[in-house]
Amino acid sequence: MAIAFDVLTTDPGGRARRGRLVTPHATVETPAFMPVGTQATVKASTWEQVWASGARLCLANTYHLYLRPGPATVAELGGLHGFSGWAGAFLTDSGGYQVFSLAPMRQVSDAGVTFRSHHDGSRHELTPERSIAVQEALGADIIMCFDELVGYDAEPREQDAATARSLAWAERCAAAQTTDQALFGIVQGGFDRGRREASAAGMRALDLPGYALGGLSVGEPTAVMREVLSYAPELLPADRPRYLMGVGWPDDLVAAVAAGMDMFDCVLPTRLGRTAAALTSEGRLNLRNQVHARDRRPLDPECVCPTCTRHSRAYLRHLVQSGEMLGPMLLTQHNLWFYQALMAQMRAALETGSFGAWAEAFWARGRRWSGAN
Amino acid sequence: MAIAFDVLTTDPGGRARRGRLVTPHATVETPAFMPVGTQATVKASTWEQVWASGARLCLANTYHLYLRPGPATVAELGGLHGFSGWAGAFLTDSGGYQVFSLAPMRQVSDAGVTFRSHHDGSRHELTPERSIAVQEALGADIIMCFDELVGYDAEPREQDAATARSLAWAERCAAAQTTDQALFGIVQGGFDRGRREASAAGMRALDLPGYALGGLSVGEPTAVMREVLSYAPELLPADRPRYLMGVGWPDDLVAAVAAGMDMFDCVLPTRLGRTAAALTSEGRLNLRNQVHARDRRPLDPECVCPTCTRHSRAYLRHLVQSGEMLGPMLLTQHNLWFYQALMAQMRAALETGSFGAWAEAFWARGRRWSGAN
Repeated sequence: MAIAFDVLTTDPGGRARRGRLVTPHATVETPAFMPVGTQATVKASTWEQVWASGARLCLANTYHLYLRPGPATVAELGGLHGFSGWAGAFLTDSGGYQVFSLAPMRQVSDAGVTFRSHHDGSRHELTPERSIAVQEALGADIIMCFDELVGYDAEPREQDAATARSLAWAERCAAAQTTDQALFGIVQGGFDRGRREASAAGMRALDLPGYALGGLSVGEPTAVMREVLSYAPELLPADRPRYLMGVGWPDDLVAAVAAGMDMFDCVLPTRLGRTAAALTSEGRLNLRNQVHARDRRPLDPECVCPTCTRHSRAYLRHLVQSGEMLGPMLLTQHNLWFYQALMAQMRAALETGSFGAWAEAFWARGRRWSGAN
Repeated sequence: MAIAFDVLTTDPGGRARRGRLVTPHATVETPAFMPVGTQATVKASTWEQVWASGARLCLANTYHLYLRPGPATVAELGGLHGFSGWAGAFLTDSGGYQVFSLAPMRQVSDAGVTFRSHHDGSRHELTPERSIAVQEALGADIIMCFDELVGYDAEPREQDAATARSLAWAERCAAAQTTDQALFGIVQGGFDRGRREASAAGMRALDLPGYALGGLSVGEPTAVMREVLSYAPELLPADRPRYLMGVGWPDDLVAAVAAGMDMFDCVLPTRLGRTAAALTSEGRLNLRNQVHARDRRPLDPECVCPTCTRHSRAYLRHLVQSGEMLGPMLLTQHNLWFYQALMAQMRAALETGSFGAWAEAFWARGRRWSGAN
């Protein structure tokens, strides 16, 4: 197994865990947030900036890299690490999520999925075996089983079928693997406890080095996600890293850590940065707002990132209003630091046995992240 | 006078000069290239990246900053330095160039220019006195006289009138100034030696701390610009910095340094970086070209910039083809380093008395910068 994972301590009053994940390219302190580097680049960021934020593990998207520049090219150029120059670790998703959310004309069967490229309409097929072969060519530290995604509004019959198919595909992924990359299983099952339990039991039987919860953050209300988090992490082996895919807002991260999850990824810090929004210790700021035009303060008085130590809200607003690239660059940088600082605060609280008090104080501040200011 | 300028040495076989310009915010080794930071940001670059490239003096555009966020806002936020966070020196142009090239509905009289904003059509007037007041609010180390620009195809009568008006306006600029910023005069006169001599004589009489050649790089053939450079630098005082505005390609810079010019600005390194082009020691590369798709080499084997030390042409092409912001960011960074390295090479050759040999070797390589590869 190419990774090692240790739970260093657990919250005495709950289920939160402080762990350490050692991969071939980086040691990752958990709970950990992974910035998303869809096309082997974290949008609007240099890799030095990503490293400086504290991130050591980034996600890259197999679907996008499969289509362009293609797995053979990435492999020839030294895999994702040699290709991109990122000094930390990579995790690749299976391609399934983007096939189901982006690709037109897709047809699903037990064999796999055929679809057309969203670039040029060319026809492609992704199967569990092909996803693993592509992920092996990309060469990430951690790779994911190919699974079938269904939406929040899927009928129980669809949920049953997708859950069963995802398990069968996971078995084929494990059988197809030829490298010692860490292959993570993905527990599906939608929003039904029995279905989640069945999926987890099947996945555990594969004895994989890590496990993810999939099928969350697909449009369900917050309370519904939290309900799944109340039981689903415990269905995953305690001695393996637990990865909550595609989550989320700061509130979601704190709730999920409290529920026992270790790893997270989300496009929010980068996407918000490109849409003139910053998450701060006081909540969310919209830098398009006129109120910032003459404000000398940094985005976040509690933040030590290069954006906050060097630039005012007034300058950032000017950059955004002027359509200058430095606006998204600096806002993305801040948001990446904000997410890493949030995880570091949780890790520090866990180390001192004070996670419960920390979380209580976090919730007491009652900040709004999805609103604007 | 807020600046000091010393000619440290001159080329024993020619007119090239190695100098040092000390401004309130930076010491600038000359010959020097100024990156353009139109809206108080060098496009696609952090200020740390601009500093790391070796640049110490950047240009900002009065016209753009006058319209947005406005001189009062910039002044309130600490001038260009406090506003942007740039640790080096700034030079502002007078606004004239953009009024004549960007603003619709402009009307010129001896008093000044009325025009409409290219943002919202609002009506504005820029006079010599107003240009100086705006540049004083912006607070750059070096400011420029307001002048009238005419194109390469202007009739002699228009050239005469614009040259005379620019001189009259320079006198009003000098009279209007209330700060100790270094005000540079601009010698106009188009492509006629007699007119250039008359303009320079009038400007010299104002005894300003620095002088620029304006009205070049306005569409004329290279040979015509070189012809002006054969006599015009000598019309400027030898003990003051000589600034060639808006120039240019590497060839132009070497020719202008050889002719005795000290300072340069141009949008080329940043604009090329945003259009997938890199200038290298071997000539110009177009990163959209398929030939780079699997090329592991850096952009430039002779370059030590962060882009060249960390990334391959293949990765850069992938970023460009994927529309990722990191593509322009990394290409701009390289181009900024390339320009600074070119100036550093010329300064080093001047220090060892070998500029003539260096320039001969430069020309012997016969590289093409405006073509594509």
